[in-house]
Amino acid sequence: MGSDHARTLATSIKGAAVTAVSDTDRHRASAIASETGAHRVHRDGQALIADPDVDAVLVASPDGTHADLVLACLDAGKPVLCEKPLAPGIDACLRVIAVETALGRRLIQVGFMRRFDPGYTEMRATARSGKFGSPLLMHCVHRNASVPPSFDSGMVITNSAVHEIDMARWLLHEEFAFVSIFGGPSEASDSTGRPQLIVLESQSGLLVEIEVFVSARYGYDVRAELVCEAGTISLAPQAPIRTRFSGQTASSLADDWRAHFETAYRIQLQAWVASVHTGVAVGASAWDGYVATATAAACLDALQNRTRTGIRLEARPTLYD
Amino acid sequence: MGSDHARTLATSIKGAAVTAVSDTDRHRASAIASETGAHRVHRDGQALIADPDVDAVLVASPDGTHADLVLACLDAGKPVLCEKPLAPGIDACLRVIAVETALGRRLIQVGFMRRFDPGYTEMRATARSGKFGSPLLMHCVHRNASVPPSFDSGMVITNSAVHEIDMARWLLHEEFAFVSIFGGPSEASDSTGRPQLIVLESQSGLLVEIEVFVSARYGYDVRAELVCEAGTISLAPQAPIRTRFSGQTASSLADDWRAHFETAYRIQLQAWVASVHTGVAVGASAWDGYVATATAAACLDALQNRTRTGIRLEARPTLYD
Amino acid sequence: MGSDHARTLATSIKGAAVTAVSDTDRHRASAIASETGAHRVHRDGQALIADPDVDAVLVASPDGTHADLVLACLDAGKPVLCEKPLAPGIDACLRVIAVETALGRRLIQVGFMRRFDPGYTEMRATARSGKFGSPLLMHCVHRNASVPPSFDSGMVITNSAVHEIDMARWLLHEEFAFVSIFGGPSEASDSTGRPQLIVLESQSGLLVEIEVFVSARYGYDVRAELVCEAGTISLAPQAPIRTRFSGQTASSLADDWRAHFETAYRIQLQAWVASVHTGVAVGASAWDGYVATATAAACLDALQNRTRTGIRLEARPTLYD
Amino acid sequence: MGSDHARTLATSIKGAAVTAVSDTDRHRASAIASETGAHRVHRDGQALIADPDVDAVLVASPDGTHADLVLACLDAGKPVLCEKPLAPGIDACLRVIAVETALGRRLIQVGFMRRFDPGYTEMRATARSGKFGSPLLMHCVHRNASVPPSFDSGMVITNSAVHEIDMARWLLHEEFAFVSIFGGPSEASDSTGRPQLIVLESQSGLLVEIEVFVSARYGYDVRAELVCEAGTISLAPQAPIRTRFSGQTASSLADDWRAHFETAYRIQLQAWVASVHTGVAVGASAWDGYVATATAAACLDALQNRTRTGIRLEARPTLYD
Repeated sequence: MGSDHARTLATSIKGAAVTAVSDTDRHRASAIASETGAHRVHRDGQALIADPDVDAVLVASPDGTHADLVLACLDAGKPVLCEKPLAPGIDACLRVIAVETALGRRLIQVGFMRRFDPGYTEMRATARSGKFGSPLLMHCVHRNASVPPSFDSGMVITNSAVHEIDMARWLLHEEFAFVSIFGGPSEASDSTGRPQLIVLESQSGLLVEIEVFVSARYGYDVRAELVCEAGTISLAPQAPIRTRFSGQTASSLADDWRAHFETAYRIQLQAWVASVHTGVAVGASAWDGYVATATAAACLDALQNRTRTGIRLEARPTLYD
Repeated sequence: MGSDHARTLATSIKGAAVTAVSDTDRHRASAIASETGAHRVHRDGQALIADPDVDAVLVASPDGTHADLVLACLDAGKPVLCEKPLAPGIDACLRVIAVETALGRRLIQVGFMRRFDPGYTEMRATARSGKFGSPLLMHCVHRNASVPPSFDSGMVITNSAVHEIDMARWLLHEEFAFVSIFGGPSEASDSTGRPQLIVLESQSGLLVEIEVFVSARYGYDVRAELVCEAGTISLAPQAPIRTRFSGQTASSLADDWRAHFETAYRIQLQAWVASVHTGVAVGASAWDGYVATATAAACLDALQNRTRTGIRLEARPTLYD
Repeated sequence: MGSDHARTLATSIKGAAVTAVSDTDRHRASAIASETGAHRVHRDGQALIADPDVDAVLVASPDGTHADLVLACLDAGKPVLCEKPLAPGIDACLRVIAVETALGRRLIQVGFMRRFDPGYTEMRATARSGKFGSPLLMHCVHRNASVPPSFDSGMVITNSAVHEIDMARWLLHEEFAFVSIFGGPSEASDSTGRPQLIVLESQSGLLVEIEVFVSARYGYDVRAELVCEAGTISLAPQAPIRTRFSGQTASSLADDWRAHFETAYRIQLQAWVASVHTGVAVGASAWDGYVATATAAACLDALQNRTRTGIRLEARPTLYD
Repeated sequence: MGSDHARTLATSIKGAAVTAVSDTDRHRASAIASETGAHRVHRDGQALIADPDVDAVLVASPDGTHADLVLACLDAGKPVLCEKPLAPGIDACLRVIAVETALGRRLIQVGFMRRFDPGYTEMRATARSGKFGSPLLMHCVHRNASVPPSFDSGMVITNSAVHEIDMARWLLHEEFAFVSIFGGPSEASDSTGRPQLIVLESQSGLLVEIEVFVSARYGYDVRAELVCEAGTISLAPQAPIRTRFSGQTASSLADDWRAHFETAYRIQLQAWVASVHTGVAVGASAWDGYVATATAAACLDALQNRTRTGIRLEARPTLYD
């Protein structure tokens, strides 16, 4: 994703220039730098963050390194767009939040790009219009054609379902209190070969049902329906064309999330760059990043224990109101 | 179609029994008779019509024989459902109309089954509700996957487009005054390999645009959109299921008109049998059959002369008001 | 429903005549009898079953009376189509099964009409084609615009969700082992104002997720998606037309289940009448009726106890293999 | 459109800055300048083109002024993106072409933004893939909810249908030889109240059928289907969400072309700015602008004379190969 982001910044985002690049693979870093016009390739993220030619930082490194890089950005007073998760562990998330809270201003945006997707933003605006009454339930489908063999049931939650968790919070304006999980691995060797069904219950009793299936073979597919008191709102298919061929009318699915959410990624980057200029934070905050990680952690417990599991959250600092 | 109709009558239509069958292929006639429980196989249609065990007649013989069989039915005072066309020639149609008019009551229904199709009937009811204002224009698409080599450009009109002609009259409540034809054969060997575009202008200036393409390869496809002053009404796709497979969301098209219009055929037969019992004619009349043939004849002239061609119709007898 | 069935039998079903009618409301019974041409109005169902002019019986009386009427039919050796449920209680279902099993031949069909719906039958045929691999999960949505005030959370399961339970068994060819229920009444006065989410786990680990929402306001809506190893199969929308009006493209939903499943009801009746003639049972058996009632009973327990609840079934008599 | 373009350039287009603005309404020009950060407001377009701080020019002035402004750009050697039409008259178009041809390099892009629309570009790529065989016919629908009273039948062609004319040429890779027009004004007061049907025949016999209806009331609607030998390719609806409400499933249409083609306009601007930097022209050329004007002129003749009308084009200079 780092290369994708750098390319988008270099070609399509107003008000930004890629000035420096860092990657553990120096060869790849150099290639991206020359492709995007970056002046410098740094040996590591900390050096990049310290570079005076760097005004703002985009973190797309391995998950485990996110928190330290984000903390370095806070230390340097530089805005940062951090790919999700903010950190894989709850404690690391809370440490970041403590520092940002102490700083007293929001410098961190977590890359839940779906908040900028035209479908979800229209769904939210429509729900908020009041015409459909209050939301009651949300159905989500998240399918990948396939995942690498290293992908296990836990990653299905922390990498895939976590997007639905953030979306549902953002659409419903509520935190979740309980989670139950069905399906998934019946044995070790089959960890991702079956769909998992996640049922979240919000503090006021709203329901969110998520199917995550990362071996769906047929393609990448993300769907959502928000059921309200007087009607429902669904994401519409996004294919630009329909064909009639060989006995069928058909439209194509995106190959993967990059293609499916290409527009969301671009809008997110443009909004982030604008927010760097204005100083007004947009998108998912460090708090949202923490809640996503904490909720996903409860999901992992539910997956392990096969029982309805409570979700405990810290009190939200006023910085994030 | 004769066999299909007989089977439907025998298995699915209330108030009817297949009592007699006739076919130039006696072997086929016997097979159908035994399948449908018919008592008797007649050597020809005239004998069947004369059979006292026959109360009503369904004619699905070659087009050229329709008029004589229908006239025999009129002579015998027996209701008849005649597959379209009533007759391939205008004079034969007028002869039938003269006899039925002299008889003073409607015994003939012409098998324009689309008048019983749930899509078209809903389209008509919606147009008549007034909500959409007056109709202004109609788009029609009529595609077959393929046709036998003997099918020529003229048959594209008299066999295929004639259904759209009847539908448009029935939906718009107007007769057509002019026809223009585009496309179609660029040379003899290519008579049906290209789509034809037929533009009909009604007496008050309404437009009907028909694409007929009988070598569309991909499947059988019939579509229509009625454009009114305040909105439009389209036939919806009819597939019972949708699939997601191999990178696509898709639904199947019917293989041919039998499958596509299966429901329309059944409803038509049930309505016809009911009309035989009540004595109240339903569906397309002999007059409708004549207008279809006369309009198709003008289309053939337009195809030949490649010019906007007037359509002349006789005055409609009051029997058909 | 009784009146609807009688009318359909009288007007659209081949091979059947309505010969006798019974209803606690004698006035209504007489009206239906005269409308359908029935010779006789009986004072109760037992008398109707005993009538020698009655060859086969359709039971659409209050749920609590089903078992006794069906037993009387068995006693009289007459085929019976019994509206679901076979009986509201498990014991009554087992009593019926015991008698039918002792009789040694299937006389009972339970009116799970969706087994005859073109959408579900095509879904099943497609799943069985093998192209999509094995089924893994099924999503179901069952929404009613509204229900009478007497409708409570239990009836949401026994009256509405029970259709999905039968469908899922029929599509997946498995019995369910566990059920969990989420949502639904947060307090007594709100028993049906919120959607309920039912999660069924089959004996081999297949999942079925059912949303039942009987106060959905916007209309009647039934949807299903069967997720298989290599693709998914969904019911397609059934509206015959689409409109463009006032800034929207739209199609209508059926008002209620009668309109939505009109075709399924007709096909079911035709298939039942044919089965009476041939003596070969079709559709849902008494066993299927028992399993539906037993599974629904476990759902009621799960609703009450708010915990994942086991489903216990008797061994299936060989009559139902 | 000028303001829209300036805003898009200022906020969303990489590699461009709005440095100068001109408008006959100086108040509006100042407002746009201050909104987009332009340094200077010029009293007219010629002064703006002469401004040394202006590297490239976007012309969105009244149609009649396009040619002179474009010629001034050629004279100044500055790339220009000119809103369609290049000029309303054929002679003015040819004059521009003569000057650009003499210059020997392409500086002019005509703003046929649909060439950058994801739907049309995917349609073209799919057609070119070869899978569907050769194109044979194209159906186009172009509907506006309403137009100002000053809009007459001629403008329906030169302002609206001209987009379809350019699109069809671009998709089919052929010029048109004949045009016929049906419908439209039945009297002076009704000039745009009825749909017009335009039938174009290409030099090799391909057909393009265009409905243009600028008083469609219900909304803005643009559709297209390309019929090829083995299948068809249609634009898919673009609404981001679908709703279920009040008995209907529905999705919204865009209010007007700005909303509908917002993405196309943005991509066009980004591509133009990139082409200014690279010096490699993209999009519709001055030649394409000439052909659009010449074809529209033949349409106007056909509208006037109500007869199939030939379309004559000059020979294409090699600069445009």
